[in-house]
Amino acid sequence: MNGAESLVRTLVAGNVDVCFANPGTSEMHFVAALDRVEGMRCVLGLFEGVVTGAADGYFRMKGTPASTLLHLGPGLANGLANLHNAKKANSGIVNIVGQHAVYHIEYNAPLTSDIEGLARPMSQWVHTSPDSKSVAKDGAAAIAAAKDRQIATLILPADTAWGAADGVAPVPAEKQSAGYSAQAVETAARIMKDGGASTLLLMTGQGLTEKGVALAEQIAGKTGCKVMGQTYNPRMARGRGRFSIDRIPYVIEAALPLLKDFKNIVLVEANDPVAFFAYPNKPSMLKPEGCEVHRITAGGENSIAALEALAGALGAKPSDVKPQKLTELVKPTGALNHTTIAQAIAYAIPENAIMVDESLTTGRGFFPPTAAAAPHDWLQNMGGSIGFSTPVATGAAVACPDRKVICMVGDGSAMYTLQSLWTQAREELDITTIVFANRKYQILLGEFAGVDAGEPGQRALDMLNLDRPTLDWVSLAKGMGVPGVSVSNVDDFNKALANAIAAKGPKLIEVVM
Amino acid sequence: MNGAESLVRTLVAGNVDVCFANPGTSEMHFVAALDRVEGMRCVLGLFEGVVTGAADGYFRMKGTPASTLLHLGPGLANGLANLHNAKKANSGIVNIVGQHAVYHIEYNAPLTSDIEGLARPMSQWVHTSPDSKSVAKDGAAAIAAAKDRQIATLILPADTAWGAADGVAPVPAEKQSAGYSAQAVETAARIMKDGGASTLLLMTGQGLTEKGVALAEQIAGKTGCKVMGQTYNPRMARGRGRFSIDRIPYVIEAALPLLKDFKNIVLVEANDPVAFFAYPNKPSMLKPEGCEVHRITAGGENSIAALEALAGALGAKPSDVKPQKLTELVKPTGALNHTTIAQAIAYAIPENAIMVDESLTTGRGFFPPTAAAAPHDWLQNMGGSIGFSTPVATGAAVACPDRKVICMVGDGSAMYTLQSLWTQAREELDITTIVFANRKYQILLGEFAGVDAGEPGQRALDMLNLDRPTLDWVSLAKGMGVPGVSVSNVDDFNKALANAIAAKGPKLIEVVM
Repeated sequence: MNGAESLVRTLVAGNVDVCFANPGTSEMHFVAALDRVEGMRCVLGLFEGVVTGAADGYFRMKGTPASTLLHLGPGLANGLANLHNAKKANSGIVNIVGQHAVYHIEYNAPLTSDIEGLARPMSQWVHTSPDSKSVAKDGAAAIAAAKDRQIATLILPADTAWGAADGVAPVPAEKQSAGYSAQAVETAARIMKDGGASTLLLMTGQGLTEKGVALAEQIAGKTGCKVMGQTYNPRMARGRGRFSIDRIPYVIEAALPLLKDFKNIVLVEANDPVAFFAYPNKPSMLKPEGCEVHRITAGGENSIAALEALAGALGAKPSDVKPQKLTELVKPTGALNHTTIAQAIAYAIPENAIMVDESLTTGRGFFPPTAAAAPHDWLQNMGGSIGFSTPVATGAAVACPDRKVICMVGDGSAMYTLQSLWTQAREELDITTIVFANRKYQILLGEFAGVDAGEPGQRALDMLNLDRPTLDWVSLAKGMGVPGVSVSNVDDFNKALANAIAAKGPKLIEVVM
Repeated sequence: MNGAESLVRTLVAGNVDVCFANPGTSEMHFVAALDRVEGMRCVLGLFEGVVTGAADGYFRMKGTPASTLLHLGPGLANGLANLHNAKKANSGIVNIVGQHAVYHIEYNAPLTSDIEGLARPMSQWVHTSPDSKSVAKDGAAAIAAAKDRQIATLILPADTAWGAADGVAPVPAEKQSAGYSAQAVETAARIMKDGGASTLLLMTGQGLTEKGVALAEQIAGKTGCKVMGQTYNPRMARGRGRFSIDRIPYVIEAALPLLKDFKNIVLVEANDPVAFFAYPNKPSMLKPEGCEVHRITAGGENSIAALEALAGALGAKPSDVKPQKLTELVKPTGALNHTTIAQAIAYAIPENAIMVDESLTTGRGFFPPTAAAAPHDWLQNMGGSIGFSTPVATGAAVACPDRKVICMVGDGSAMYTLQSLWTQAREELDITTIVFANRKYQILLGEFAGVDAGEPGQRALDMLNLDRPTLDWVSLAKGMGVPGVSVSNVDDFNKALANAIAAKGPKLIEVVM
């Protein structure tokens, strides 16, 4: 057994049995080992941003890590943006990055670069295997780190892959599931008893699972506190029968008035609310002056236990839940606009769908109309690097083959990692991609004003508009083996959604706005 | 004037008057300044790998740097692979990377990352501007570094862009054009007099300009030394009337016998020949044992002066040139194969064309058949990170609007940065892209054997083949506004080439193999 095979066997034994891959020469022994080892599903991406984003989507839906296989420094570099997004989402990933043979590095061949240096900004764990007998043990350590929600980057020199190895290494025991701050729970309970209405329970992570929002609903019913999600969340259980909560708006001018009266914010894995960007003469932090912040869990801690303890301390019970009045579902007619698009999607969402949201400006109002849709999970971009959604949808569909994945993406964002469509076609993944073709970086038109840059002239507009030439998403999808349709009115959009959702397999709908 | 405007004015004053851009919020003041400053051509790319690769192509053809405009850490990350290629090509680039406002960084907003850490592996010069009044001066220092053939990454916090600035900063004087090693030239002359036939003059960089190869031709004629280029070169003057030289083959088994009898190698900017990858039981260094290496110039030194000095010391003159017997041009007929593809391209190359070569396996034999083609420049990938050619072609066409650019690329490589086609359409660039659709990572099938990984089974082949589904390049091009045609026989390929070359503007030819 060589080092590569010892690694593949260690991954499979450690339940890391999916590998999103874009290999090169240095990774050929890993690829060869796939033929000798049962149980590893290797999924090819034609660009590394697809590979790393898919691993993020896989972790979010499966709760356990996938691995990636990347080709030296530049291959890793191509995957870094979606590793950034994954790291901010607390998704664990085992990155396997090939390297030249140890003795070859000093000769500075064309592909030589500082791989560890590239890995560090987007990884919590980085290690280069020194020899073939260490590879299995190093792989096991990487698995343990990834199960602990870290980006673990293991660099594998070619001679450690082809050299002799001893066999599988056991994965170190998982860390005890982290707890929560009992003292903060006690403080939160006291605060909520005294002034529920002036308290914000701000949640993400486990707090937004089906169980988490149900507990929050009881706490809100009992105390009158407000419950919100972060602006962006890795995954949120939503839809009919579940507690519908808002998120902090992206736009500072909308966020500040919503938060201005809170005296206390209780954080469940969430960050102290911060503006996505800085703007001249606007604050970075969104909470009002004097507002106190109490963290009951950090990312990866046991938020369900924390919410149960809080509910217990408050005496909150299922019977405390207050009925919510949700926007009713309607099948829209008339003109195609942000409202009717949201209605059409809400109407079409099938039971247990996975909604991957990179709709940016088009989707800012998607939450209220979809609150009463069939139960679903809603996944968002945690790192702000666009090109996240089509890969994450790909990985989510690999993780959950029995669930429909609906990827909602602006045309600007979709262009970054459009190669995802090919992987979706090859793996026959059940994904409907909806591209909102407003033919501009619409968000930047707002940001241009937001940073006090005045009115854009022609040369500035040329950097913000994608209308010359227009992208033809049906042709792009066809080029990668995914059937597509373009719609420009609500009736056609309704029909296209119904058709895409009724059939299994990848589909693309271009919504020309 | 704000910091961003002071930077744009400094760039234009420093003759950095093309900016390849994919901006975001933090870069909006730079974009706004475009409307107020005359003389900056800003070219939008829909993915950052297009942007950085275009800046590489621009430098190679223009000899002076362009700038890029990238959005924070992830935007830079997406551009790193082609910065790697550019750095290995000694291309100078001024990278402008936006950053959060200085005071906003500590809050760890979604897009926050270690930008300097990301930049360092692929940049020789990295600096973050501390305040708006420093931006112009920092920009001028970046320009000086880029003119000195460095990747210069200037990180621009948003508040340094919108804060007040004083005006344009002068660019520090360029370094004196570096010289050459007079002692090495003396040694080389002595060696060549004693044993010309056992000496290899191995060149890249300026050595491969029209003037460089002409001098090498005289030296070879006088001494009988062998002249070769590196396996890959940033730019090489070739074609009818120019000295035709071979390159060191990529495949080690082909390179070793060619080099085995040399007792001395004289390096003109070239590297001591090293294998692209390491392979079990094969050497990293390609020269025979006992062969001595003498460097007369390093990258960026004055190779023309060095070759003139060498020719002078040897008494080599134009009359020493020996006639070369080149493969005659033929318009091929019959089956489509590597030979007829090369013949068709050679026949079609127009005068003064820029040939960007990422043809990998298909193009391994392109050199002999194209030696007698119309005079042209031949550009190759220096860093080995695939996805280099379509961006480099884009930048070369911006640099040289009066020259036809022909981009030869394998289907696997073309997928990495296919967004280039959109920029080519928008800017109406005169580029013919030829995609060799062998529907596999053909090179990896060879590498698989090369690293002794045995025979690939089905699971390994799934990582090497792109045939399920097949990519439809005509649709992909159409989706981005570029007219395309698919050919699968030689006659149609001849016709498609003639049509594409006769008309101005971007075209794509898919060669189904």
